[in-house]
Amino acid sequence: MEKIAVMGGGSWGSALANLLVDNHKEVLVYDNDQATVDEINQFHTNKSKLGDNLLSKEIKATRSLEEALNFSSLIVLAVPTSVTRIVLSNIKKIIKDKKLFVNVAKGLELNTNDRVSEIVNDEIPGQYIEGFVSLTGPSHAEEVIVRNLTSIVAASENLEHAKLVQEIFSNESYFRVYTSCDLIGAELGGSLKNIYAIASGMLDGLGYGINAKSALITRGLLEMKRITVLLGGLEETLNGLVGVGDLIVTCMSKFSRNYSAGLLIGEGDDLKTSLSKMTMVVEGVKTCKTAYHLSKKLGIETPIIDAVYDVLFNEIEPRVVIKNLMARELKSEH
Amino acid sequence: MEKIAVMGGGSWGSALANLLVDNHKEVLVYDNDQATVDEINQFHTNKSKLGDNLLSKEIKATRSLEEALNFSSLIVLAVPTSVTRIVLSNIKKIIKDKKLFVNVAKGLELNTNDRVSEIVNDEIPGQYIEGFVSLTGPSHAEEVIVRNLTSIVAASENLEHAKLVQEIFSNESYFRVYTSCDLIGAELGGSLKNIYAIASGMLDGLGYGINAKSALITRGLLEMKRITVLLGGLEETLNGLVGVGDLIVTCMSKFSRNYSAGLLIGEGDDLKTSLSKMTMVVEGVKTCKTAYHLSKKLGIETPIIDAVYDVLFNEIEPRVVIKNLMARELKSEH
Repeated sequence: MEKIAVMGGGSWGSALANLLVDNHKEVLVYDNDQATVDEINQFHTNKSKLGDNLLSKEIKATRSLEEALNFSSLIVLAVPTSVTRIVLSNIKKIIKDKKLFVNVAKGLELNTNDRVSEIVNDEIPGQYIEGFVSLTGPSHAEEVIVRNLTSIVAASENLEHAKLVQEIFSNESYFRVYTSCDLIGAELGGSLKNIYAIASGMLDGLGYGINAKSALITRGLLEMKRITVLLGGLEETLNGLVGVGDLIVTCMSKFSRNYSAGLLIGEGDDLKTSLSKMTMVVEGVKTCKTAYHLSKKLGIETPIIDAVYDVLFNEIEPRVVIKNLMARELKSEH
Repeated sequence: MEKIAVMGGGSWGSALANLLVDNHKEVLVYDNDQATVDEINQFHTNKSKLGDNLLSKEIKATRSLEEALNFSSLIVLAVPTSVTRIVLSNIKKIIKDKKLFVNVAKGLELNTNDRVSEIVNDEIPGQYIEGFVSLTGPSHAEEVIVRNLTSIVAASENLEHAKLVQEIFSNESYFRVYTSCDLIGAELGGSLKNIYAIASGMLDGLGYGINAKSALITRGLLEMKRITVLLGGLEETLNGLVGVGDLIVTCMSKFSRNYSAGLLIGEGDDLKTSLSKMTMVVEGVKTCKTAYHLSKKLGIETPIIDAVYDVLFNEIEPRVVIKNLMARELKSEH
């Protein structure tokens, strides 16, 4: 039986811990919050994140980062990207041997625009990095915890590492992992899609329908590919689970925090009010700012990102930005 | 003011007629059914297709194919592909001058596997064909009739014809048309997606969630591209509104007949019972048979098409085909 350490007892970390136990792995979850650790160990739940769903009794949790780090050579990073650097800098102080890092969080770091693989390279000395895999794709934790069919991608510059993660996380009953060598594309896709989830929520808040939403996703995909290719990723990655697939779940599901924030804005709230109503991190707001400035720097046309940015940061009415989008010059699709 | 003839007073023909009046065109709708013609002329509704929505009073309807044909040099074909050949053979008998044919129906012809552009070339003598444009993409008639935001594609081998159709159908308030030169891709995308709509309904009928559905759409897109490219279409077309976009509306919307048929099957009905409950044409069932045999002939891997075929025609339980799909060998995404 393999041992796996999961850093972060949030909804996704807990759901993946449960999957790994289903796959006959021994799992230790690290979390900084004593109440979460106790709840997992004693009651086998994580109510604030996953409701009444029961976690496997075999999942153990700890507040000791060192215990978790020493537990396995495979470290699943399941913390929000906003705190990844802090966790890694703490890991750096105690790491003693090589680890394979598997990041399952989405988003770019604010200010630096760094992908998580870049943060790992920044923070962890090279001799302790066996490799890095990004496990990402259309996967709401709320469905994985109830063993609903899910397919995602393990992306790494090292195909063998991607295959290892594929083997560990896949099972034949509900979780299927595909491999990819396009780490950059996988990391960017998982971040950029949150911008369109906000836009999708706005459309619903304004009362638009599925025609509008499917056009948003399709045209958004094109923008995501423009940015990704210029940053060294592959278009085909975004045509797959990381782009098309993840855009769909994030833009269409009530579970998405980014969608919910957009919905409130579309219904008339301003950004500050919307965010104050959200209990969880809304990555897409930060990602929008990052992507907006990046697209201006790269000289790429990203009309939807610009529109979301105008609503979020320039206080322009959602209806006005949509009117402007529709009034643009007619053009060829590609 | 331009004049446009719309052949077919179904839901899509009526909704597009209404759009064209909004765009200041003069529109004559041909329909074979006297009651439909009378209803449009007298009451400005099409209740059996579009409920209580009011059509513009400026739309005129006729049961005379000749009157409609002589009304305009631009002929919108808005009849199901199963009867396109019949309508065209009737047009052939009375056509006297060149027409630009704009097809807005989706699907391939059963038995021949012909696209509508091929049927037009078969039935109408070359000297009467000015050109052919396929106007297709994510567009439920039920939303266009209420002026909900919609973006679609006008595809033609002749870019000038595509641009003409783009100009005629686009407006700045709710309908945006992009051009494309990939006629084959546009026609195939609009047909093949119906197979995945059936599969999507089955997933819902079985109680699966959005993770599963987004994976279905993404992996289905890949199959559609395999078939399309071998038949002379472009991958990029299917990465756009005709593929990604149309898959989303068709797989996610309650308006889709194909989705509804799949839903009934997933809930336990057999094919015959499901189809007997549907009041409108379920193109995807025929398309699945066509695509299945085509993919075998072309030697392409299409596991989802095969699975839907097994459910529809080999009476294999939906749960069993899903289990088989999940148990396939693990692989790379692309």
